[in-house]
Amino acid sequence: MSDTKIAIVIFDKFTDIDLFLMWDLFNRVRVDGWQVKILGTAETHISATGIAIPTHGRIEEANEADAVLFVSGQGARERILDEEWLSKFDLKPGRQFIGSICSGALILAKLGLLDGRKATTYPTTKGLLESFGVTVVEQPFVASGNVATTGGCLAQQYLVGWFIENLAGHDWRELVLRSIQPVGEGLFFADAEELTKLYAPVAKSAGQ
Amino acid sequence: MSDTKIAIVIFDKFTDIDLFLMWDLFNRVRVDGWQVKILGTAETHISATGIAIPTHGRIEEANEADAVLFVSGQGARERILDEEWLSKFDLKPGRQFIGSICSGALILAKLGLLDGRKATTYPTTKGLLESFGVTVVEQPFVASGNVATTGGCLAQQYLVGWFIENLAGHDWRELVLRSIQPVGEGLFFADAEELTKLYAPVAKSAGQ
Repeated sequence: MSDTKIAIVIFDKFTDIDLFLMWDLFNRVRVDGWQVKILGTAETHISATGIAIPTHGRIEEANEADAVLFVSGQGARERILDEEWLSKFDLKPGRQFIGSICSGALILAKLGLLDGRKATTYPTTKGLLESFGVTVVEQPFVASGNVATTGGCLAQQYLVGWFIENLAGHDWRELVLRSIQPVGEGLFFADAEELTKLYAPVAKSAGQ
Repeated sequence: MSDTKIAIVIFDKFTDIDLFLMWDLFNRVRVDGWQVKILGTAETHISATGIAIPTHGRIEEANEADAVLFVSGQGARERILDEEWLSKFDLKPGRQFIGSICSGALILAKLGLLDGRKATTYPTTKGLLESFGVTVVEQPFVASGNVATTGGCLAQQYLVGWFIENLAGHDWRELVLRSIQPVGEGLFFADAEELTKLYAPVAKSAGQ
């Protein structure tokens, strides 16, 4: 079985939670060859709150991944003005699953990946995304073919769920998403044994 | 107005999302003197997924904070066996707000902060927490006086909301929690202008 490569693209001034919610969820999947990497243009990138986060590789690796996700933040507004940065990407929705969180949709738009598609984003980014000719809808998650956008940090659950369902199957989606619900509201003490599947040691830990 | 100091205590093998959801939310509050720091025993601690996260200070600082939060993860099970580590804490629920996420409740129990109180935790930690004589209830959030516990990562919303309501007021609680809801499900495009309050520049940025 071939590897499944998931690439999360970050940059300086990214929204912390928009990286770490999906990063943590993707890392709960225990499927042979499952690899998750944080990609950037430097050894570390500084988050919106000022934390230096290490990367596992460079953004060019995204072109060979099975799934590519763009985080959000003030930095996304700077990246869409950086033609050299944008030119590193050669993404193919015909063979890759591609997604964005909040203002990450601006990057998808600049890469031409939202042409003729509906999309969603964070409320403060709606106008700018529309200026690229994208039809922006007030929904948490919009998938069109292999390209998906989300708006609002917690909508990452829909996005991560969609990727996991497509790449690891429905059962992993269900268990991973259940594992972070509040106790008594989607997650229950009786789930304890099944949850241990998510914390099994990883034989070959990618991106770590 | 005096400073409001919030201390988040981490250690090696902590659950990534249990730090970063609350860290990001606390950093959205724009109140004079609001300080949020990640505390540990080293310059960096390695998360459960293998990421090196920098700290802003040492765990002893928690004793002088207005609010102290303990994250979760396999590392919490190791910390409760480390008497030297535990001895650094001198927390006072009479003058501090204290909280935990998931297995962080084990640390509160070992510090004697759950004596005679009900608490909640992650399903896989229920038995161990009960072995300390704590009455564990199947609820997402349990507050008893100034001590609160949560179970399930997303229950952090209740915990962070409780801290913010007590330390910054109801309006900040409402706006901060609304800002991460999925678009169309609690957060709306019409909220854009109000959301900008959360992203205003910080004059003196604590812990960064």
